Amino acid sequence: MVCTVTTTPFTIGIIQDAATPDTAANIARADVLVRRAASQGAQIICLKELFQAPYFCKVPQADRFDLAEPIPGPTTDHMCALARELGVVLVVPLFERQAAGVYRNSAAVIDADGSLLGVYRKMHIPDDPLFHEKYYFVPGDAHPAAAGPDAAGGFRVWKTRFATIGVLICWDQWYPEAARITSLLGAQVLFYPTAIGWHPAEREEWGRAQVDAWRTAQRAHAIANGVYVAAPNRVGHEPEPGTDGITFFGHSFIADPFGRYVAEAGEDEAVLVARCDPGLIETVRRNWPFLRDRRIDAYGPILSRYLGT
Amino acid sequence: MVCTVTTTPFTIGIIQDAATPDTAANIARADVLVRRAASQGAQIICLKELFQAPYFCKVPQADRFDLAEPIPGPTTDHMCALARELGVVLVVPLFERQAAGVYRNSAAVIDADGSLLGVYRKMHIPDDPLFHEKYYFVPGDAHPAAAGPDAAGGFRVWKTRFATIGVLICWDQWYPEAARITSLLGAQVLFYPTAIGWHPAEREEWGRAQVDAWRTAQRAHAIANGVYVAAPNRVGHEPEPGTDGITFFGHSFIADPFGRYVAEAGEDEAVLVARCDPGLIETVRRNWPFLRDRRIDAYGPILSRYLGT
Repeated sequence: MVCTVTTTPFTIGIIQDAATPDTAANIARADVLVRRAASQGAQIICLKELFQAPYFCKVPQADRFDLAEPIPGPTTDHMCALARELGVVLVVPLFERQAAGVYRNSAAVIDADGSLLGVYRKMHIPDDPLFHEKYYFVPGDAHPAAAGPDAAGGFRVWKTRFATIGVLICWDQWYPEAARITSLLGAQVLFYPTAIGWHPAEREEWGRAQVDAWRTAQRAHAIANGVYVAAPNRVGHEPEPGTDGITFFGHSFIADPFGRYVAEAGEDEAVLVARCDPGLIETVRRNWPFLRDRRIDAYGPILSRYLGT
Repeated sequence: MVCTVTTTPFTIGIIQDAATPDTAANIARADVLVRRAASQGAQIICLKELFQAPYFCKVPQADRFDLAEPIPGPTTDHMCALARELGVVLVVPLFERQAAGVYRNSAAVIDADGSLLGVYRKMHIPDDPLFHEKYYFVPGDAHPAAAGPDAAGGFRVWKTRFATIGVLICWDQWYPEAARITSLLGAQVLFYPTAIGWHPAEREEWGRAQVDAWRTAQRAHAIANGVYVAAPNRVGHEPEPGTDGITFFGHSFIADPFGRYVAEAGEDEAVLVARCDPGLIETVRRNWPFLRDRRIDAYGPILSRYLGT
């Protein structure tokens, strides 16, 4: 493993797909799509949030904890072998069983030699109708044990063979603080594996605005920090008895450090691949040098929940 | 002055215009445009950055400090009288002379009874070719004297007759930290008076992307914080001997708390007016409740300049 920040261009890929209740089939499909991305030149490939299962958080139901598995475990074993075979870095988001009663919304980061580099554990946990994540997931720790020098406040980067990458998960994408800290750690790309969709009853009124807000918030992270952003989302309608289910809206994308789309998907299964140039990060950060002028002496109040009188 | 956070809808206006070397003419034009905004129902009206002068920072030149004036001073006296006459709140950005050698890029906030509520002093100061702001401006203080309970880290809100507003200035718009802290103080609207433009030589390659990045970054502040954002920019080409000058690109806009455009300008003089509904702030923050889930226990590293190894 070559552990240096690279200045050589590298190629990333993200996988937008659906999931069924058949875990083995989900993994098999991901395997095919990862191979497709690799065949298109992708060197770092990221799957969607909780990739190998339906989005099970639609209702709180204790037997669904059975979907969790350890890291390392059967799914990461499969993906480590795949990474080694193809010589690619993989970001593998899945439901992690860390211990009895300690379940996480996590992403394993696997280097191109098949070694497990580490795990990011989702820091911001939502809880909304049909998204009962606070029931299922322990939030990532602000002070994870043994996180090492490439971590701060629970946020992390990994120096992979091809680039230094940060991983954040879904709801994290609404928090500029997460993007900022991960970028300051040296990330060249922020990956945002996601499972966002429409409540069918809301789609007519809010659907377009929700997709646009989702993309705008993340493109802004690219701009504010001068990094690439890559967000693979889930697609497909997933039913849930007693509810209207969720229609995951796709629209995965990759944005450059100036926030420009370099690859975009619609609402169908898709493999997006894009070349990333560390030279463009350097150019953008020189021409609009935001990092130079941060007022770190004045940001202390951001550590408050609310400041209003 | 009624100093309560209102839940009643209110109407804001922003003025996009050019400036000439004739200060009196600049103020007279602003006077006309403020009256026009008020006649269209605007209750809180914000002018562009350094409104009453050309963007003088194109070169560092000591006699240009003569353009600065105290607050209160002749320009704010004029604007206080105008605010009182029309019964509107005014945000008046200008070059402030606080003391000999202490000059600021500031915005006076004037309530609808004509009283001067206070001054915001630009916290993030750029310095780029043709934008020599570090030469002209002392940055806003992280711990301003006598800022009161509606300030934190140099960021401030004002409880005006019609709404609680925050003011940030131009380069501040690239810093999510500034938008966050000002929103946490209770702002319902973030005003971003601006003077951003193209270097004529860059326009062909970067022009469109710069406008889009500028708008995207600010719409993201609206989304992340559930607030209205209103950004009045300068227009017109301003020459500067020995340079190609700057073409200020306009494209002022008002976005709602979901980041949707509710008013937009092109590259000509424009008065934008939009109704703002505190009920929509409440709705947006309930449906995508980002403020609930912030990891204030984990954001400490944001106070570092850089975290990379």
